[in-house]
Amino acid sequence: MEIKRGIAVSPGIAIGPALVLDTEGVRIPHRQIPAANVGDEIQRLHEAIAHAAHETRQSQLALTAKLGSQYGAIFAAHSMLFDDPSLLRELDEAIRAQLFSAEYAVSKVIRRYARALESLGADHYLSSRTADLFDVERRILDRLLGNRRESLDALREPVIVLAGDLMPSETAALDPNKVFAFATESGGRTSHTAIMAGALEIPAVVGLGKFLTNVSGGDLVIVDGDSGLVLIDPDAETLERYQALQVRHQRQVSLLSNQRSLTATTLDGTRITLMANIEFPQEAEHCIQRGSDGVGLYRTEFLYVGKSTDPTESDHFDAYMTVLRILGPEQPVTIRTLDLGADKFSNLPWAPPAEKNPFLGLRSVRLCLRNLTLFKTQMRAILRASAFGNVRILFPMVSTLLELRQCKMILSEVKEDLEEEGIAFQRNIPVGTMIEVPSAALIANNLAREVDFFSLGTNDLVQYTLAADRNNEHVASLNNPADPAVLRLLKMVIDSARNAKIQANVCGEMSGDPLYTQLLLGLGYRQLSVTPHNIPEIKKLIRSVTLSDAEQVAQDALQLETARDVTNYLREQMRKILPDQLEA
Amino acid sequence: MEIKRGIAVSPGIAIGPALVLDTEGVRIPHRQIPAANVGDEIQRLHEAIAHAAHETRQSQLALTAKLGSQYGAIFAAHSMLFDDPSLLRELDEAIRAQLFSAEYAVSKVIRRYARALESLGADHYLSSRTADLFDVERRILDRLLGNRRESLDALREPVIVLAGDLMPSETAALDPNKVFAFATESGGRTSHTAIMAGALEIPAVVGLGKFLTNVSGGDLVIVDGDSGLVLIDPDAETLERYQALQVRHQRQVSLLSNQRSLTATTLDGTRITLMANIEFPQEAEHCIQRGSDGVGLYRTEFLYVGKSTDPTESDHFDAYMTVLRILGPEQPVTIRTLDLGADKFSNLPWAPPAEKNPFLGLRSVRLCLRNLTLFKTQMRAILRASAFGNVRILFPMVSTLLELRQCKMILSEVKEDLEEEGIAFQRNIPVGTMIEVPSAALIANNLAREVDFFSLGTNDLVQYTLAADRNNEHVASLNNPADPAVLRLLKMVIDSARNAKIQANVCGEMSGDPLYTQLLLGLGYRQLSVTPHNIPEIKKLIRSVTLSDAEQVAQDALQLETARDVTNYLREQMRKILPDQLEA
Repeated sequence: MEIKRGIAVSPGIAIGPALVLDTEGVRIPHRQIPAANVGDEIQRLHEAIAHAAHETRQSQLALTAKLGSQYGAIFAAHSMLFDDPSLLRELDEAIRAQLFSAEYAVSKVIRRYARALESLGADHYLSSRTADLFDVERRILDRLLGNRRESLDALREPVIVLAGDLMPSETAALDPNKVFAFATESGGRTSHTAIMAGALEIPAVVGLGKFLTNVSGGDLVIVDGDSGLVLIDPDAETLERYQALQVRHQRQVSLLSNQRSLTATTLDGTRITLMANIEFPQEAEHCIQRGSDGVGLYRTEFLYVGKSTDPTESDHFDAYMTVLRILGPEQPVTIRTLDLGADKFSNLPWAPPAEKNPFLGLRSVRLCLRNLTLFKTQMRAILRASAFGNVRILFPMVSTLLELRQCKMILSEVKEDLEEEGIAFQRNIPVGTMIEVPSAALIANNLAREVDFFSLGTNDLVQYTLAADRNNEHVASLNNPADPAVLRLLKMVIDSARNAKIQANVCGEMSGDPLYTQLLLGLGYRQLSVTPHNIPEIKKLIRSVTLSDAEQVAQDALQLETARDVTNYLREQMRKILPDQLEA
Repeated sequence: MEIKRGIAVSPGIAIGPALVLDTEGVRIPHRQIPAANVGDEIQRLHEAIAHAAHETRQSQLALTAKLGSQYGAIFAAHSMLFDDPSLLRELDEAIRAQLFSAEYAVSKVIRRYARALESLGADHYLSSRTADLFDVERRILDRLLGNRRESLDALREPVIVLAGDLMPSETAALDPNKVFAFATESGGRTSHTAIMAGALEIPAVVGLGKFLTNVSGGDLVIVDGDSGLVLIDPDAETLERYQALQVRHQRQVSLLSNQRSLTATTLDGTRITLMANIEFPQEAEHCIQRGSDGVGLYRTEFLYVGKSTDPTESDHFDAYMTVLRILGPEQPVTIRTLDLGADKFSNLPWAPPAEKNPFLGLRSVRLCLRNLTLFKTQMRAILRASAFGNVRILFPMVSTLLELRQCKMILSEVKEDLEEEGIAFQRNIPVGTMIEVPSAALIANNLAREVDFFSLGTNDLVQYTLAADRNNEHVASLNNPADPAVLRLLKMVIDSARNAKIQANVCGEMSGDPLYTQLLLGLGYRQLSVTPHNIPEIKKLIRSVTLSDAEQVAQDALQLETARDVTNYLREQMRKILPDQLEA
């Protein structure tokens, strides 16, 4: 049994067979083979080499026919490598003496040759010849692994996906019925991939560090999305314990769901609006199941990610209408305009250029303000949907008053167009701005005069305020919502909102973490928006506190000097109101 | 004549012949040859191909001897390419019919072949074979360009260096006596490279966009480091105008230097401390020449950049002593500990890993706190130097109180070590923290209680506050020190410093821009640190304002809502006090 510790990003326990994807989509089992299998393994190797050599000769012939013999000759060097007796001897020896699998032997030995070539160094033309060696390696490996490769699109049985990293588009393509859980070597708590995992309600752990070399496809794996653990080849006792945990987990989920019809009201009678963050239209169902007060943040990136053409106005409209139909005409649905860029890439032609610091680059509303056709198309769809429900529009990543004014001006133009065309929409659709850039928080009093509501994106706000990438494990200790600087910004923003009598909603990960519930209420926030699966827990907490206690908590926390002090203090306060919270 | 507009990063006018470096260090003249030269050019080409073929055969033999014939055979494909009659025919034709230079013909034709190979596509092994073609291309080009290639290390005559980009280490290696100016396609106003150009006092323009394909080595070029222009092949009239400008420029420099012995005192008698930012020990001379009040920021990255081993304690000590010897024992010298990472990379083994957002990553003091040996070595050298002058120590990129306390704790340990060893140092060496992360500005009142001085790094502070990379042209309009959010932070910081009765110095680019001088004085700042060449201009400005006017300016500016409003207002105010400023 091997235990890896990572970052829990989507709760739940999953137990199942591993499907391992390395960065190149091919994985090499590094483990040793039983001594008894040496003969078979060597035979597998020879068969694979023979096949690869044959394939190479075919390519050589095909290329000669197409371009002439001087190009076909390019493969001559490859063919010669296949016949190199010293190479073949070394490969056999690696299997026989070291009990390497054929794949591992190929990878080890050829890479050693490649390094030898590179180390000649003096003449740099030579080192580039290592590409030939890697081609040969790939050909042999393709053959060796061929029968055992699986693809995410065509899963035959449910698995636990283990990968170096998963692109948001890959995560989005995961079928929750075929994927029990996933675990990745890289990634952070608030990466888009992690957010999607939560949205899909698939248990997930990310940021595990290198571990793929120690696991083979089919190994039994446990993903503990509550504690951030991945257990490979668990022993019988551990397995039993986790099976019991899984049953208990499912029971708790249904228990908390019983609160669905209760309101999020504090013990002293203040009604808190507890909304949901969603990504996919289907999640509106989760909102109903968990008893949310509408949608506080409807991300619309899923319409773009992994697509090669822009979504049309009806693609937008249909998605929004799906949510409105499920939630009905009363519940607020806050649609955030496109927040693409940074960690959310797209294949679309107007996607941002490669940037050295994408988080500080041309992303989100900055990108939309340069692509007005795209921006207006989305606005048209949002406005049209506003005729059918309680729709609010939200602009992300606003960093200056000028940007907000530009967004509002474009919105006015689109309204005029719709009016001319006689298309119905809500003229007074509430307009909000995300507060997620420090500059926006610092000028909140100015922004508050020009919008109907604020939505605090604490993930970005924290990373910019502390200059600590939320996906970079090396600065993870700095990226902390409990930092006194963050608390001061949260205080400034809510004070500005209250002065201007506008709503302010917290929608980052901070709002879904029970540690911060009292603090946020105490600072003055009356709206929280969290992933649907967090609703029952946060609701329970809200129903267990008084506002006057919460205000004291916030006041005390604001006096503390370090994130550690704040966290310890909040933990203590949480224990007081919910002594069983750690177990719950 | 062609005019390119970029970002002026180091002032002055330079006129001279171009030296063009493309990204690979080789440049290909794209211009056409006179029809009369066709015969000679074809002969040059054939000679180069014959030479390259010979070289390839030599490599093949050498490799066969070293590794065996199967590796030597790798070059067989290359040799065959040299004999390909259709390739040779096409090359001749490109020179004859299109009047291409031999170099351009080689580049054009071979790249077309490479694209053809790539387009076969179906079998991806083939596309990687284009590397062979590029090897052949490179061999021929090496020969063709061989006689005309120049290297930065061995310049024969002064030139204007034009490049795609220059690494800080390359910039550092430029000899001001052999390089009149430089201009690059990429880069931004506050990139490290730009800062170094200023330090070396070489006129420079960066961020020009693609232009290298339109210029050949030896072309006459004008670099206008005041207006951010590069003029290629200027006409006679333009050339004359710039020659006159150059003379006038030199006269002004000496005129402003006459202020050297004057103090930076406002009209109503407040003495402002006007210090210098330096990078290289030799710049201490510039401080004397320009009449600075010491060094407000001594960057120490030059000791590491481009090195393959860590500098020793004496490397540090010697550098610091050079500055102290030049400036004498009275003038303050503020040594900033290593600020490596982000755009300042190093080849050192402990250099940070590749990061997706290096500006939000493991850089500066974060890196030092993980490499205590390195950190302590530098601290020892700074402390030892403190026995010989008015040395202050400054920690960069502090984002939390915890980090500052860690730095101070390590400093105490180093002091104890020195004490035990009986080595002299200044026990009460003033300790400062940079305020350049928004969180640091927001907790300035806490930080102020634990340091002797603040140093405001406005470049970083602006980029983090507005989430806009200072080197990314696409978000350049957002990266603005005049942003109201930045002004509010500057106010918070100086208020905290004054409450705690500690000094606060502004050392980012903002302090060297006369637009902001009144504003900064009016906010309450009494120390500015600027690049040496900015000292005369800022001193002149300080000597032209009253503090009471400046306070009114700051108060007014703080009321404005957008960066544009602030800039316009400040420009207007500057015109009032120095109507000739725009001409000066």
